[in-house]
Order: sequence, then C-alpha cells, then structure tokens
Amino acid sequence: MTEPKATTAPSAADANALWGGRFASGPAAIMQQINASIGFDQKLWAQDIAGSKAHATMLAARGIISGADRDAILAGLDQVAGEIEAGTFTFTVEHEDIHMNVESRLKEIIGEPAGRLHTARSRNDQVATDFKLWVRDALDRLDGDLKALQEALIDRAEQYVDTIMPGFTHLQTAQPVTFGHHLLAYVEMLGRDRSRARDARARLNECPLGSAALAGTPYPIDREMTAGLLGFTGPTANSLDAVSDRDFALEYLSIASIAGTHLSRLAEEIVIWCTTQFRFIRLSDAFTTGSSIMPQKRNPDAAELVRAKVGRVIGALNGLLIVMKGLPLAYSKDMQEDKEPVFMADETLALCLAATTGMIRDMVADPASMRRAVEAGFPTATDLADWLVRSLGIPFRDAHHVTGRIVKLAEEAGCGLADLPLDKMQAVHPDINEGVYAVLTLEASVNSRTSFGGTAPERVKAAVAMARARFL
Amino acid sequence: MTEPKATTAPSAADANALWGGRFASGPAAIMQQINASIGFDQKLWAQDIAGSKAHATMLAARGIISGADRDAILAGLDQVAGEIEAGTFTFTVEHEDIHMNVESRLKEIIGEPAGRLHTARSRNDQVATDFKLWVRDALDRLDGDLKALQEALIDRAEQYVDTIMPGFTHLQTAQPVTFGHHLLAYVEMLGRDRSRARDARARLNECPLGSAALAGTPYPIDREMTAGLLGFTGPTANSLDAVSDRDFALEYLSIASIAGTHLSRLAEEIVIWCTTQFRFIRLSDAFTTGSSIMPQKRNPDAAELVRAKVGRVIGALNGLLIVMKGLPLAYSKDMQEDKEPVFMADETLALCLAATTGMIRDMVADPASMRRAVEAGFPTATDLADWLVRSLGIPFRDAHHVTGRIVKLAEEAGCGLADLPLDKMQAVHPDINEGVYAVLTLEASVNSRTSFGGTAPERVKAAVAMARARFL
Amino acid sequence: MTEPKATTAPSAADANALWGGRFASGPAAIMQQINASIGFDQKLWAQDIAGSKAHATMLAARGIISGADRDAILAGLDQVAGEIEAGTFTFTVEHEDIHMNVESRLKEIIGEPAGRLHTARSRNDQVATDFKLWVRDALDRLDGDLKALQEALIDRAEQYVDTIMPGFTHLQTAQPVTFGHHLLAYVEMLGRDRSRARDARARLNECPLGSAALAGTPYPIDREMTAGLLGFTGPTANSLDAVSDRDFALEYLSIASIAGTHLSRLAEEIVIWCTTQFRFIRLSDAFTTGSSIMPQKRNPDAAELVRAKVGRVIGALNGLLIVMKGLPLAYSKDMQEDKEPVFMADETLALCLAATTGMIRDMVADPASMRRAVEAGFPTATDLADWLVRSLGIPFRDAHHVTGRIVKLAEEAGCGLADLPLDKMQAVHPDINEGVYAVLTLEASVNSRTSFGGTAPERVKAAVAMARARFL
Amino acid sequence: MTEPKATTAPSAADANALWGGRFASGPAAIMQQINASIGFDQKLWAQDIAGSKAHATMLAARGIISGADRDAILAGLDQVAGEIEAGTFTFTVEHEDIHMNVESRLKEIIGEPAGRLHTARSRNDQVATDFKLWVRDALDRLDGDLKALQEALIDRAEQYVDTIMPGFTHLQTAQPVTFGHHLLAYVEMLGRDRSRARDARARLNECPLGSAALAGTPYPIDREMTAGLLGFTGPTANSLDAVSDRDFALEYLSIASIAGTHLSRLAEEIVIWCTTQFRFIRLSDAFTTGSSIMPQKRNPDAAELVRAKVGRVIGALNGLLIVMKGLPLAYSKDMQEDKEPVFMADETLALCLAATTGMIRDMVADPASMRRAVEAGFPTATDLADWLVRSLGIPFRDAHHVTGRIVKLAEEAGCGLADLPLDKMQAVHPDINEGVYAVLTLEASVNSRTSFGGTAPERVKAAVAMARARFL
Repeated sequence: MTEPKATTAPSAADANALWGGRFASGPAAIMQQINASIGFDQKLWAQDIAGSKAHATMLAARGIISGADRDAILAGLDQVAGEIEAGTFTFTVEHEDIHMNVESRLKEIIGEPAGRLHTARSRNDQVATDFKLWVRDALDRLDGDLKALQEALIDRAEQYVDTIMPGFTHLQTAQPVTFGHHLLAYVEMLGRDRSRARDARARLNECPLGSAALAGTPYPIDREMTAGLLGFTGPTANSLDAVSDRDFALEYLSIASIAGTHLSRLAEEIVIWCTTQFRFIRLSDAFTTGSSIMPQKRNPDAAELVRAKVGRVIGALNGLLIVMKGLPLAYSKDMQEDKEPVFMADETLALCLAATTGMIRDMVADPASMRRAVEAGFPTATDLADWLVRSLGIPFRDAHHVTGRIVKLAEEAGCGLADLPLDKMQAVHPDINEGVYAVLTLEASVNSRTSFGGTAPERVKAAVAMARARFL
Repeated sequence: MTEPKATTAPSAADANALWGGRFASGPAAIMQQINASIGFDQKLWAQDIAGSKAHATMLAARGIISGADRDAILAGLDQVAGEIEAGTFTFTVEHEDIHMNVESRLKEIIGEPAGRLHTARSRNDQVATDFKLWVRDALDRLDGDLKALQEALIDRAEQYVDTIMPGFTHLQTAQPVTFGHHLLAYVEMLGRDRSRARDARARLNECPLGSAALAGTPYPIDREMTAGLLGFTGPTANSLDAVSDRDFALEYLSIASIAGTHLSRLAEEIVIWCTTQFRFIRLSDAFTTGSSIMPQKRNPDAAELVRAKVGRVIGALNGLLIVMKGLPLAYSKDMQEDKEPVFMADETLALCLAATTGMIRDMVADPASMRRAVEAGFPTATDLADWLVRSLGIPFRDAHHVTGRIVKLAEEAGCGLADLPLDKMQAVHPDINEGVYAVLTLEASVNSRTSFGGTAPERVKAAVAMARARFL
Repeated sequence: MTEPKATTAPSAADANALWGGRFASGPAAIMQQINASIGFDQKLWAQDIAGSKAHATMLAARGIISGADRDAILAGLDQVAGEIEAGTFTFTVEHEDIHMNVESRLKEIIGEPAGRLHTARSRNDQVATDFKLWVRDALDRLDGDLKALQEALIDRAEQYVDTIMPGFTHLQTAQPVTFGHHLLAYVEMLGRDRSRARDARARLNECPLGSAALAGTPYPIDREMTAGLLGFTGPTANSLDAVSDRDFALEYLSIASIAGTHLSRLAEEIVIWCTTQFRFIRLSDAFTTGSSIMPQKRNPDAAELVRAKVGRVIGALNGLLIVMKGLPLAYSKDMQEDKEPVFMADETLALCLAATTGMIRDMVADPASMRRAVEAGFPTATDLADWLVRSLGIPFRDAHHVTGRIVKLAEEAGCGLADLPLDKMQAVHPDINEGVYAVLTLEASVNSRTSFGGTAPERVKAAVAMARARFL
Repeated sequence: MTEPKATTAPSAADANALWGGRFASGPAAIMQQINASIGFDQKLWAQDIAGSKAHATMLAARGIISGADRDAILAGLDQVAGEIEAGTFTFTVEHEDIHMNVESRLKEIIGEPAGRLHTARSRNDQVATDFKLWVRDALDRLDGDLKALQEALIDRAEQYVDTIMPGFTHLQTAQPVTFGHHLLAYVEMLGRDRSRARDARARLNECPLGSAALAGTPYPIDREMTAGLLGFTGPTANSLDAVSDRDFALEYLSIASIAGTHLSRLAEEIVIWCTTQFRFIRLSDAFTTGSSIMPQKRNPDAAELVRAKVGRVIGALNGLLIVMKGLPLAYSKDMQEDKEPVFMADETLALCLAATTGMIRDMVADPASMRRAVEAGFPTATDLADWLVRSLGIPFRDAHHVTGRIVKLAEEAGCGLADLPLDKMQAVHPDINEGVYAVLTLEASVNSRTSFGGTAPERVKAAVAMARARFL
C-alpha cells in the first residue's frame, strides 16, 4: 500500500508502569518492534533499487515522468546503492522498511523528482517484486552450490570407482558395491534438487510490478517493459494474485527442505563411517574437531551439524505454510513473515553445502576397512542364487531356497561361500559345478552387476563420465 | 530385498501376561502389526501387476525366461487383476505386502513359472516402481481436479466480470475491484499448482525397475524396454539411488501442501463472505448445513473443513520429511512409512477440490451487499491522488498528501468524495477542476485500472478469455 | 566435552579457488561458521557465570579446590559479569562458545586458579545446566507476560460484563452472549498456558552439573549442594541422560506453540471485529497503522502479525523435534541447534503477548454494532425451544421442531420472534401463552443462562471475581 | 449445536457429468463424505454413552426430567452399549456422527424419553466431553505402556549393571560406561514422559458438559454433579472456552511427540548396535526379519519402524496446531479434524512402545564386542587427567595438556595408557608415580565415577533400585 504509517507514542515515563517492564517505552515501542521490517528486509536493497530503476525507466518511456526526472532518479538510486555498498548508509527503523529507507534517502539527494518514483506502483507490488528477484538469485546460488558438491562427489566417485564396500539395507550388509557407485547416488539426488530449482525459477519469473496496491493502475504503464528490464519473462496476469502470492517462497523452502534431507542422509553416513567400528573414511582435520587428550577422537562436528540443520529448514517451510494458511486476499500484514525463513534457509543451505563439499573433497577412504566389513557375512549369496537360475535354469524362488541351505553349510563350516568345497554344494543340489566359484568372490559379484545403473566398475566409470556431461 | 521374512511366534497363551494386554498374542502379533504393509499398500495392486507384466515381457524378450513362461505369467497376472477388481481376492497379512500377495496367488494359479518372475529384480526396486507409478497417476488426477476448479472459477468470474466489491488489504477496504477479478486470482494460483504437478511428473518419470536390491543385476536385462512399457522416459541412472529415493513422494506432498494453502485461503474468504455481516455470497444448500430452528443459519461447514484439512496435508509432508531425514542408504524399513501420507493427501485433496468446485459452481453473489460494503470509506481516494498526478502534474507523494486533506473534509462533511463540492476541494488545491469528478465513482475507479492484470472489466473480460485458453 | 578444539586453516589465498566464492577463506572459515555458537549462546552468559560460581563454591566446600582459589574465581567471575553487563567484554569466535569466552577471560584476570574451575565438570553438563537455567527464567517471564494479558482481559471483561454481542459458531450468529463472557474464554486459555509453564518448570528443575562429559566424575563432589545453590530441587539421576536431554527445550516450545495458537485465535477475532462490516471494536492508534489518504482505514497490523507469528514458533518446535529425532546418546553436536529456536520463540512470544496486551488494554467496544449484529437472525430461537420444554413439558427434540415452524412464520412476517403475535404461535402449538415473550428478548436470553460457566451477566460478574482470585 | 443438518441431494444421474467422475453421486455425496465423522468418531461410543448416562442422572436429580424417563434412558443406553460391544449395532453415515447414531438408536428402543436426553446440552459440549474422556483414557494407557517399557529397561539394566561399553559423544568413544547405566538414561526419559502425561491428565480434567452450544443453559442443572459422575474434578469455568478448547488434544500430541523422539533415539541406537561392525546386542528372532539366503542378516525392522513412526506423530501434532491456528470462537467445523490425529498417535505410540518393550525384553548384549569397542582409543585419558589434578594438584586445564602429551606417546608406542612405562610418563611430568596405573584400566575408570548419577556399578545398582521405587 501507498499509505504512510503513523503511530502515536505515549510518553516513555508512564509506559513502564503500564507494560510491566519488558518493553520499556510502551505501546509505540512494541508496535515498532513488531511492525518494522528494516531489521531483515534491508537484505533486499539491491533488488529494491533495481526494481525502482526499471520502474522509473518505464515511466519515462511511457511519458508518465519526464526524462529529466528519470535521469535524476537513476543517478540518485545509484548513489544510494553506492552508499549501501560502502556501508555509509544509515538504515532507520522510523522508515520501517527497505522501500521507505531507500526512497527517503533518494528524496534527500534529488528532492522533488523522488516523489514521482512511486507513481503507478505501491509497496505491495514493490515488495513482491523485490522478494521474487531475491529468491531468483537465491535459486541461482543454490544451483551453483549444488553443482559444486556434485563435482566433489563425482571426483571422489572416480577415485573410488572400484573400491568395494558393503552395500547396506537396514544398515546390514546386503551385497558388495563400490564406493564410487555409492557416492554417485548422491549426485543423482542433487541433480533432482537442481532440476527442482530450475523449474521453480522459471515458474516464479513473472513480474508483479505494476499491479499496484492490488487492483492495477490507471496510468498507461508498460508492464512488459518493466518485466523485461528486470529479466522476467513477462508480467503477472492478475494484480490481486500478484500482491498476495508467496508460492515462490514456499516452493523455495520445499526445495531447500528436500535438498536438506539429502544432505542429512549423507551426513548420517559420514558420522557412521567415521566411527571406530566402521572406519570407512577419514575426514580432514579441517572438518573435525579433536581432543587434546584423546588423539584418536575426531568428532565429525560438521557432519552432525549438517545432519541437524535440516531441522530448521523444514521448520521454516512449515512455519511459512502456517502463515499463508487461510489468509484472505489480497495483502495481509501476516505476509511480512515471509522473508526471514527464506533468508535463514538460504544461509543454512549455503553453509551446509559448503561444509559438505569440503568434507567430501578432503575425505580419504579406507578400502581395507570397507573390505573387512563386506567380508563379514555372505554378501555373494544372491550371486549364487542368480548363478543357479542362469546356469541351471532353476526358478528364482527355488534357487533362493537352495542358496539358503548352502549358506547354512558354509556358516556351519565357518567359511565363506567361495571356500566351501564343491561336494558340499552338490549335496544340496547335484547339478552345481566348478563354474559357480567364478561368481562367489567380491570382485566377481561387483563386476557382474553390469545392468544400467549397476555397480560394476565399468558401469560406474561410464556413470562418472555421464554425470560430468549431465551436471558439470 | 529378495529375502522372505520369518518371525517366530510364541504361544498366545503366555503372551498376555508378558505384554500386558494391549497386544493379546505377544511378540509375533506386535511384529506383524508394525511390520505388515498389506493394510495400506494393497492400493498399489494395479501398479504392481503392470510392473510385473512389463518385467516378464522384458525378461522373455531378452531370453531370460521363455516365451511360454511369460505367457503363463501374463495370463496369471490378468487373472489376479480380475480377482482383485471383482473383490474376490483375499489379501492376507501373512504375505505381508502387495508384492507377495500377488506373487503367491500367481503361484497358486500358474505354478512353477511364477517363481521365475522375480528374476533380476527385488522388492526394493519393485516397490519404488509401483509407488512411482501410483504417484504419477495421482499427479494426473490432481491436474484434472485442479482444472475442474479452475473451470468453475472462470465461469463465475465471467458471470461477475463487472460486479464491484471491496478489494481488501488487511481485511480493510482498499480499492474497489470486481468479483470476477478476485476469482481469477485463484485461477492463477491453481495454474501454478498444475504447473508444479507437471514438473514433478516429468521429474519422477524414470524407472527404478532393474536396480534390484540395490546394486543392479548380472542378468542381461533391458531397462530401457521395461521403462518404455511402463510409460517412463528411461531408467534411473543409479541403482542405490533408485531404491532409496522418495523425492517424488516428498515433492508430491509439497505440491499438495501449497495447493492446500490456496484452497484454505479461498475457504477462509467463503466463511467470511457468508457471515451475516458481509453477505457477499450465498452458498447452495448442498454445501451448507442449516438449523431447523434458526433458518437464517447456513453454516459453511464444507468451507471450514477445506480450510482445516490443509493441516493434515502439511502434517503429512512434515512427517515424511522427518522419516527421510538422516536415513543411510540404501533401503531402510523406515521408508515403509512413505505411502500412507501420500494416499491420505491424495484423498484429502481430491475431496477438498471437489467440495470447493461444488461450492464455487453453486454460489450466488450478492452485488448489493458488496456495493454497500465498498461504499463505506473512501475507496476512490487513490483515484483522486492519481488524478492529481496525471492532470495537474503534482508529484505522487505530494498528491497523496493533498488527497489526505480532501478526504478529511469529506469525512467532516459526512459525504463521499464524489459528493464533495468543488470549492471545498479547491480550498485544498486551487488547480482542481470539474474533471476530477470523472474518477471519483466506483465505476470510474474500476474502469480506469486497465493496466495488464488490472481490475477494469474490459481487462477482466480479456483475462477470462485468456484463462480459458491457457488452462482449459 | 572438555576437549579444546583445533581446526587447521589453509591460506585464504587459494581458498577462493577451492570453495567457489561464497566462503572466501576456505575450509577453516566454513568450519568456524558452522561450528561456533558464540553468536547466539552469549545469551547464556549470566547463567554460565552463575553455574560456575555455584560449582566453584561446591568444589571448595568439598576441598577439591582451596578457599583462596574459590575466592579468586568468584571475584573474577563477578568482574567478567560486570564487563559483559557494561558492554566492554569482547566475545570472540575463536573461543567458540560462551563457556570458553568466559573462562579464557577469567584466566586473563586471575591466572592459574581459572584452570581449576573446570575440575569435575565438562562443557556437556555445563551447557545443559546453563540452558536449563535460561529456560527456567524464560518460563517465569512467560508466566508474567501471560498474567499481564489475563489482567488486561479481565479488566475489559469487567467493563463489558453485560454488553451483548453475537455468540458465533461457524462464524454465524448462534446465541447472544456478553462481550465480557467472550473475553474471559481467553483468560481460561492463558490460565492453562500458565499451568503448563508451571509444570514444565517443576519438571526441568533438576541440575545436570556434575554429570561431567557423560559418565559422572571421580571427584568427591556434592551435587545436592550445587543444585541447591542454583535453585534446583536436586541433581539429575543419570549422567548420560543429563547431558543428552533436551526435553525441557521441546516442552518449552510445545507450550509456546499452544499459547501461540491462543493468541492467533484472538488476533483473528480482532482482525474480523475491526472490519467495516463488523465494527465490534476499535483499536487504539498505537496498535493500528493508518493511511493518510483513507482516514477510515485502520489496519490492524499488530493483530495480523500476532496471528502470523505463531507460524515461526510452531516451526521452531517442529525443527527441534526433527533435530532430536533418532539421535544416539550421549552428546551429539546436532544438539547445538537447540538454543536458537528457543531464544526466538521466547522473543516472539514476549512481543506477541506485549502487543496483544496493548491492544486489549486500549480497545474500545462498539455495543451498538454488536447489538445490530446479534439482532439479525433469530438468536433467541433456542430460548423459545427451551421454554417449550420447561413450561409445556414437551420433549426437547419436539420443542426443537415446533420452534423451527414458529421461526419460519416470523421470517415470513419479516419480524423478530419477540414481535410475532401470540395467535400465530398458538397456530403452531396451542398451549403457548403470553409467558413465552419473557424469554424472547436478547436480555432475557442472556440473563437466563445462569448455569455455571454461562453467559448471564451475574455469572460473568462472578467469573470476573473468580478469575482475579485464581490468576492475578 | 443442537441443529439437525439437512443437505439437498441432486439426482445421481447428472452428477457424474457435473463432478467429473471422482465423486459419482454429486454434491450431496461430496458433502456427506467431507462432513460426516461417524467413520472415525465411533471410537468415542463408550465415552458418549457414559456422558449421556451422567447427564440423564443429573437431569433427573434436578427434576428436569422424571425418574421414569431417566430409568428408560439409562436402560436404553445400556442396551445400545451392549449392541455396539456385540458388534450388532449399525453405524450409519446418515446419522453423521456418534452422538446422533446413539441417540437415534435410543429413540428406536425407548421412544419419547429419548427426546428428553438432549435437554440442556448440545453437540458442542457433548463432543468436547466425549473427546476429553477419551484422551484421559489414552493418557492412562500411555502411562501403563511407558511403565512397561521402563520395567523392561530396568530389568536389562540390572542384568548389565557392570557390563562395560563405550560411552559415546559424537558417536566416538569418549569414556567407558556400563550398559546398565546407558539403559537407565532411557528410564529417566520415559519417566519424564509419564510425568507429562500425569500433568496433562490433571489439567484436562474439567468437565465441559452443561456449557451447551456455547452460552450455558437456562435449565437449573448441576454441573458439579455431572462432572463428579464422570470422574472430573469439576466443571469448566467458561462455556465459550469449554466448547472451543482443544488444548488437551494438542498437549496429548506434544507429549506423544516428545516420547516418540525418545523411542526414536533408542531405535537408532538399536539399529547401530545391531550392525556387524558394532555387534553390541542381538535382537530376538521375533523382532528382526531374516533372509533365507543370508543367515547372518538380521534386519532390525521393528527398530527402524519405531525410529520412523515418530514422523507421523510429529506430523499429527503439527497438523492439529495448524487447524487450531487463527480459529475464531466458539465452535468451528474445522475442529472436527481434531480426533483422527489423536487416535492415530495413540495407536502408533502403543505399537511403538509394545515393539520397543519386546525388543528390550528379548535382547542379549555381547559384552566382548562392547569391550573390544571401548578398548580402541584411549578411553581413560580423562581419568589420567583427573588423577593429575587430584594427586598432584595440577590445575585441570594444565593436567589436560599433560595428558595430551602422554597419550601421544602411547599412540606412538602403539599401546594403551595402562601399558605405557612410568619413565615415559615421567618424561612429560616428573611427579607422576606408580599410583597412576590404578586409574588407567576400564574397570578403574568405571568404578571411580561414583558421583551421584555416575556410571560406577555400585551407583548403577543403587540407581536400579531407586528407579524401581520411583517408577514401578
């Protein structure tokens, strides 16, 4: 709305008595504290100035303001931008929000023409535009950060393309896989995150500016032009929707939450892999904290924090969904609660992605520990079953049963499947022959899984190349 | 996993004593109750059978099973499908989930070849495929339901294209808008919901089948073929990711939650519009509940329930994000918690959309009440300010100030702006002339807002046509 | 843990290249940013110092440190406290958290004895103690703020003890109630909030100090004494639980969330009551924002913000539940995410309570608007039905039916129930007599509802007195 | 409200065309589906009948109905109860909810007197009473289930009172603790859960009955009497609050969510303890699922499901908070969404508690694996530091430093601390003597931590006894 605000302040003296101490200066102080947004929305300064410049340019192009006014406004806004960048700009809570802070400084600088800038717009379409521009940038940054982590993962995947580790289900060894293959699973997840960010960017890319307070404007504005100047694909189609829509913030938080679960899964794995019991990897000093008295202790603090921080991101998504629930059109002040959760999620995700990228870049695998782990149990039992199907033509469900009996024999004999004598196997099924041993080693198992998306090193090598082509 | 489960049941007799009464039959009963999914995943039966038919067809095409086995399997699966459709199929909790229920019945029907069906797959890739197929269908249904509501809204928007109502900010009258314009705001929201559903559908449309337990398979399968038969654009790129990914469920729930907030906003407005104080609309008998003793009472129960039910959808999104948080790869049993929230959200959203569509179709506006409401206050004050800018060349911020003084005069005179004598206005600013009255009526105000996306009836008429072309 | 942390910092020069720009100075910077808590946990300084003083006192009492050391420590800690209060203390991120910041400054001031303070404790029990003390204070503050709002509500309830307004169900007029009665409903809600805060306070009031890292300590400490000095009722019973428990934070956030829903309900009512259509109340200037061009516009910004801000509180509860979910014992770094949501909820709730108290204190009711609203419809229909039961002995369900027919007659006659001639009523039921008119006015209706908890002004008057006695 | 509902059904024929297929029979079907609650609220039948019996008894005691009517009503309600218990009662969606289903059947059985039962009450206070009674029972059941798990934990704690395992922070070994001590940490958590349940029970225990629709009633009812008959401590104080309050449901869900996080933490530990790498415990067959081909595989499905299911409980809490947010007084239909989340949470928690109790009862520890795990690293380093403080009077922070250097020597020598020669230690600090070795074994470390709440077996033994006294 274009309406300047006015609040009446009682004397601070009797306020104390009235308000019981937590808010020293009475109603006006409380109102200012709950109402002012400059404390957080100053983050939008660059977007606010860009929006105003585009608006002024359009107003002049349509003859709504003069060329001279436009030039004064553009120069004045550049000066404001310079002051903010230089840290010499004073944000004041009296001017309540970023829009009024910028405009009032502009007026100080250029005088009367500043008063023409707000023609044919209102704070409602202005803030929607600023915030959309900010979220658009955040999505671009997110894409870059996700890509950086993908690159780190792909590099490590290539390094460990044939390093055998246990493939877990239920955190129990199921079948051998390669560490490279495991890491590439996260590359896929992050690829979907990037794809979601891309879709969200395209969807939000309609310009609210010119919707004015909520009903549009009688000025002969050119919304296509403003949209174009700001990199939008076009103007929003409905002015009421334009000022009451915060879908783009909700969608951003959804994407951040899902990406956050991916990071938390990797972080949980890192914490487990770093235990003395697993020892699958070693993190760099930079991403662990140690103990001066227990040198073996390398606390994976960064991973724990990444695992935890998805909580606040999901909380932010949840919080904004709650704010928007049941809100009548068009603008309600409730919507001022939209920015902080998004700003926080952006910072959190950037930090978690940087920390995870750092951990992945620096980590060193311990192939011997991985191998020891996978050898416990009978990880090639499925390979035996598959061999029975393929070589002897036994139906899978029956092969499965035969395998169970053979594994039991190996267990009783205290040996692995590859070490069980042929006659013992033949006692379970007489057609089994020497050929079976070719599938019972870890290498054989891993090498055999050549189906598309499978763990065979040759496949993983191809997947690494493919991932580079698709994502980097 | 391909592993049949086995649980040991103690005698029910002493169980009671041990387990304290709430679970009559002891550990095995508890385990079965917490573990079995057939109670809810039977909803996947059609997808499960379609997946198995595609898999069998591919296995035969690649020579992994014989043509005869394939034919037996396909015919048997068709019979199972028939039985389920006819309601003669008995789901049993002993077979734990939909996959084993179908396969065990298949074995009864066709015998040995049934055992070959599970070659080169596992329950892990099978359930991921089934569930993806189900969510894909749900997205398509959602798109249809959203479209139906858009159609109802567009029809009403056309009917009320020039019906003037208050445009609210802060639930206070700001400027006059048309009811048609207001309704079209929701058409935009729903359009974004459909766009999100479309993107999610495209993103999930990669086939997990052939990823097997988690590592791929040594059989010479053709994943492209299976994917094609099931309408996927191709196979998933990483087998570990394929069986551990539930992004598609999370994304579905995100979309449902955002769409739910849109419905809750409309529902809140309906509840308010139906109050005796507003009386903007009248719902049909079908969507209100009445009182036999208070005939004026028309409780908007359906709207209240639509407003409320977004709560459970957001709760479901939140719940599944929590489940997935920090889960190590690949499959963990935790992921069995993925289906119920999605099934529930699908049902809830379908119901809310049907109820909302019904309310919108049947509702009748009360233009007189709307007009009475908008006339309270000075809804054309902004128009006066804009006139001062456009006609007298006063900077907007100054025009704003002049307007404030004139409105104050009107308030003191107890009349609307259009009824204030010219000399009174000229006392505030001498250049004001008769021309000003042309912008001070509600009709003039509304008609003037011709900017793209604005509320001028001609614009709204065009927007209706455009909406039909874009969405229907 | 007692373990000083050490991270290795690469040169900032090549970091840029490695980390891609968002984190200028490489791994060490990222780690410090994600790991350090001093940015927020400095809020615990007073609790940290109080805890250390109690600990030192106990250590000396048990002969673990000397009296001289104790005196030096106590004096040094007082000096640190003074510096922090005076704003001359420099918190540094190198010292990571509040505990190390205080201790290192203590060492600067008093030298060697500072090193004895950390005997028989660790940061794990120290932070748990500090945070519990802080939450305990927060609960006390919350109780005071809730009480202040109760007082404001009770004052207004007394003022409007017999002001008749519509009692709504489904936001439709159901029966007349008094405004005082309506306001007292919130006094009950807040009373439950206070009761929950009291219970939580008692439950958390066990002292973790002396649990050390996680296993207890071999020093002959006196945990009862430390607990007593800090106002705890006793020590926690299990050292592992003591350092891994954050129930008190979760419970605080639950209480805050439920209290927040109460405030949001009142805020929603205020927003609706302030509409031009309802006009039930007028907020003071201090708690509305106006418009210089639309003087009638009094935007209830404060109420909207109170309504919205429960979103972030619920989000915080949700976020911390997610953090704690599935966390193995004892201390994990994830738990560092516990403080910010609690701090934020405390600030938010304090602000919302102050704003709501302010609004309630200052608001003025408009009894004429309330009366106009309640007269629309047939609000005394239930009174008629009850009269039929009581005076004529008709079963309630039948009386209900008779009433429905009479109301229909009144509706056709275009008059209220009290204005419908007796013969018309007798046409529906012949036994109806003049006595019926005594129950058909608003005053009669309201006055009759004298059951405990009912809306009769005499009851409400008593309820006001009772509320003062119970809550103030 | 007392208002019978009426919905108008269009012919099913043209409905299909109108509603697009998902709701075959048109508006009435949609309305019934979204509106009717009998599908879930039939769970309240016993509470509904108990409430009605108390109400009828009171009405007769106050002379509002006759003794004969009361007797008929009581007998009729008993018959209805009998039919429901016997499974012969037919719930119909036409009667919408449990209250109307019971009352209409009562009318069939006893005729006219049934119509007198609803005197001086409405569905609003009736449903609030029924639901409170149900939640009260649920809290009692929860208390019993929590107690059963405490008992299982205490039994195991006693069994493993001196079994040494690693005490973890950051999932890295910090100090040795006993398994009994570790298990007792959960007994404390569950004790707090029970305490919360107790407080909630006391808080909700006020009877809404007699609040009627929202305003109280003119009948001379005795609310104390009804409250007493139903086991409440008294009547609610405000009739508007009584029908609009759902705090008790929110508080129940908060308690369930916090308890759920406790169970999820234990479940996570069980999953980790069951890995081949840890092998700390072995679950019974009843609570694992196996694999016929990998006999070593014992998937801890039950633990994984317990870990996951807290997600839906938190989702339910979140969902109901969202429903209640911003809801105007008194009753809104939104509140019908209150029951399903509570019913679901009750079932989920009961199942998770039963499963966890079963797992704990049956689990067997592997002390050798635990010992092997704790020996890796230098778990008694803190003991060495403490010895330096206690025996040599070195400030703790310095002792810490000395310890670090000694541990480094041991690491270089490839031995544990207890095996490092004295001269090596003396090279770091000359005052160290033979006495130090007494604290460097696992047993010495554990035995030394005798502070209250510490891990010394004698302490744990006492803690077991204390836990039995406090909780069982």
